[in-house]
Amino acid sequence: MDLKIAVLAGDGIGPEVTNEAVKVLKAIALRFGHDFNFAEALLGACAIDKYNEALPANTLQICQEADAVLLGAVGHPKYDNNPDAPIRPEQGLLAIRKALQLFANIRPITIYDKLIPQSPLKADRIAGVDIAIYRELTGGIYFGEKFLSEDKTVASDLCTYSVKEIEQIAHMAFKAAQNRRKKLTLVDKANVLETSRLWRRVVTQIATEYPDVALDFLFVDNAAMQLILNPKQFDVMLTENMFGDILSDEASVIGGSIGLAASASVGDTYSLFEPIHGSYPAATGKGIANPVASILSAALLLEHFDLYDEAAAIKNAVAASIDQNFCTPDIFADSTYSTSDVGDFIESLI
Amino acid sequence: MDLKIAVLAGDGIGPEVTNEAVKVLKAIALRFGHDFNFAEALLGACAIDKYNEALPANTLQICQEADAVLLGAVGHPKYDNNPDAPIRPEQGLLAIRKALQLFANIRPITIYDKLIPQSPLKADRIAGVDIAIYRELTGGIYFGEKFLSEDKTVASDLCTYSVKEIEQIAHMAFKAAQNRRKKLTLVDKANVLETSRLWRRVVTQIATEYPDVALDFLFVDNAAMQLILNPKQFDVMLTENMFGDILSDEASVIGGSIGLAASASVGDTYSLFEPIHGSYPAATGKGIANPVASILSAALLLEHFDLYDEAAAIKNAVAASIDQNFCTPDIFADSTYSTSDVGDFIESLI
Ligand SMILES: CC(C)[C@H](C(=O)O)[C@@H](O)C(=O)O
Ligand SMILES: CC(C)[C@H](C(=O)O)[C@@H](O)C(=O)O
Repeated sequence: MDLKIAVLAGDGIGPEVTNEAVKVLKAIALRFGHDFNFAEALLGACAIDKYNEALPANTLQICQEADAVLLGAVGHPKYDNNPDAPIRPEQGLLAIRKALQLFANIRPITIYDKLIPQSPLKADRIAGVDIAIYRELTGGIYFGEKFLSEDKTVASDLCTYSVKEIEQIAHMAFKAAQNRRKKLTLVDKANVLETSRLWRRVVTQIATEYPDVALDFLFVDNAAMQLILNPKQFDVMLTENMFGDILSDEASVIGGSIGLAASASVGDTYSLFEPIHGSYPAATGKGIANPVASILSAALLLEHFDLYDEAAAIKNAVAASIDQNFCTPDIFADSTYSTSDVGDFIESLI
Repeated sequence: MDLKIAVLAGDGIGPEVTNEAVKVLKAIALRFGHDFNFAEALLGACAIDKYNEALPANTLQICQEADAVLLGAVGHPKYDNNPDAPIRPEQGLLAIRKALQLFANIRPITIYDKLIPQSPLKADRIAGVDIAIYRELTGGIYFGEKFLSEDKTVASDLCTYSVKEIEQIAHMAFKAAQNRRKKLTLVDKANVLETSRLWRRVVTQIATEYPDVALDFLFVDNAAMQLILNPKQFDVMLTENMFGDILSDEASVIGGSIGLAASASVGDTYSLFEPIHGSYPAATGKGIANPVASILSAALLLEHFDLYDEAAAIKNAVAASIDQNFCTPDIFADSTYSTSDVGDFIESLI
C-alpha cells in the first residue's frame, strides 16, 4: 500500500517520540512491502516561533494532501502562564482538529499484565481492563464563542452541541461497541447541563438502531470515581469534548504511565494519530520520553487503513519490549534505556 | 451555644444518613451543654412531589432563619433519564446554593490508615494524603445561560466568571493554605478556556498578597491524572465549579469510599454542610448507606462555629468506629452493621 503520512512532530518531546514512530513505520514498510512517504510540517509553538501562526496554511495543506497525520505534541510553558499571549500553541491543535473535521477521538485503555505493579491502582481492580473512550473532538466548550470584557473583569466560554455533532460520533461508538463487549456508557452531566440533556436524548434515540448494544448513563463526577473504583465495568465510553479530555487522561494512568496511551482522531475524510500525553517540556531533549504512545499511535494509523497484520506486528513488538523490561524510566524508574534505545529495540523486533 | 440548624434531608438515602448526623449532634449538645434546634424542610424530588417546586419558598426561609443548614442528598432516577422533565431535583440544590450565596465548597480529603487496604489505590501512593479542595460553587457553567432551540436540534450552556467571583473564593483558599502546608494549586484549562485564563490572571494577582503560599498551576486533565498518580503532592486545590465537581468526586474514592467524604459550603452570610455522595437511590431504605459522610459534615458545621472540641469529639468517635471495624458494607463488604447501627455506635462514643 502507498501511504502519504504528514508528520507534525510539534513541541517539547513531540519530535523525539515521533522520530521513533516514523522509524518503526519505516521498518513496517520494509517488512511488509509498503511504500510510506513522510512529509514534515510545523504545528504549535514551533510554528509560532517561525511563522507567528500556530497552524500555518502550508501545514494544513500538507495534512490535507496526506492520507493520514502523525502528530507528536504541542504546547510550551512560555504560553501557559501568560494568560495574555495573543497566540498559543494549542490553538494550532484545535484548529487542525476542526479543519480536518476530526470529530471523534478514540482512546483505547488496556493494561499490560507485566505493568500491573507499576499502576497506582491495585491489581484486582485493573487486571483485564479494556476500555475504548470515544471523545467528541470538534465541538463543545473548546470551540464555542469565547468572551473577555474590555476591562477584563468578566470572561465566558460557550459550550454548544447540535444533534448532528452528537449523532456522527454516537454512531461510530455504537458500531465499535457491536464489535466489542456490546456495552456503551454515555457520560454526561444531564442533571445540570442543557447540552448533556441533548446528548442523552440523541444517544437514547440512536440506541434503538443498535438493539444488541446495552446503553447506560453515568454523570461525569460519578464516572471519574468509577474509573478508579471499578474500571472493568466499562466497555465503550462516549462523551463530549471536555469530559473526554479529563476522563481519558485519568483513565490513561490505570496502565501505569500516560507514556503508553495512544489515540486516533477521525472524521469522515481525514485521520490523525497522536499520543495522549502532552509536550512534557521538562523532559525535552533528555532522551527520557517514552516513545511507546507515539509508536502505538502509528499502529492505530495502520489499523485505520486495515493493515491489521502490520499493526499487530507493532503491538507485539511493544508488548515484547515491555515484557523484557526494555522501557524508559517512566515505567521502570531505574531504567537506563533512552527514547531512541526503546525505539531501536522495537524496530529491531519488526 | 445556641444553634438553629435547618435540616434538609432530601431524597434517597438523604433522610437515613441525616438522621444519624442529627442524632450525633444531639449527643454533642448534651455532652457539651449546647442548645441545638433542628428545623426540617423539603428540598429536591421530595419537594417536587409535594409542592411541584424543587426549592419551596418555605424551605429557603427556614434556611435563611437558621444559623446553618445540614443537607442530605437530592436526586431521583425518575428525572435523570427524562431529559424533558420540566423541573428536576438538582435545581433545588443549585437554587439553594445560589440563594444562600454559598460560593465556596470545601472538601477535605484524608485517609484513615485502617482503610488503606480498602482504597483502590496502592498504599504507598495514599498514606498521609491530606488535601483541601476549594470548589467554586455558585458560578461557571452550572449557572450560566442555558439554551435549547425550539426544534431541539441545538443546545448550549454558558460558562462565565467575573473577577469578583474568583477573588472571593481565592482569598478563602489562600488563607486556608496559610494554615496548612502553604501550597495552593490552581486547576484550570487555561490553554483552551477564556474563563480559565481569567482565573489564572486573578489568582496570580492575589497570590502576591500571600507571599508565604507557593502557587502552582495544573491543567484539569493533568490534575485528574496526578490525583491518582501522586495525591500527596497536593495541599489546597482551588478550582471552578465543574472541574471541582469532577475532581472532588474522583479524590473522594482515594479514601476507600465516597461514603466518608464530607463538605462545607460557605459564603459571607450562610453555610451549609453535606456529604459529597448523592442520593444513591438503589440503596434507599435498605439501611446500608454509610452515615459517616453526613456525620463528618456535622463536624464541619461545628468547626464553622469554632466548636473545635465538639468537632474533634465527633471525628474521634468516627475514627474509633472505623478502628473497630464498625462500618457499613461499603467499607467492609461482609459487614452487617446498618446505617443506624453505625450512627448509634458513634453516638455512644460521644
Ligand atoms: C493540549 C490540549 C488543548 C489538548 C486538549 O485538551 O484537547 C490535550 O489535552 C489533549 O487531550 O489532546
Ligand atoms: C447533584 C449535583 C447537581 C451536584 C453538583 O454537580 O454540584 C453534586 O454532584 C455535587 O457535587 O454536589
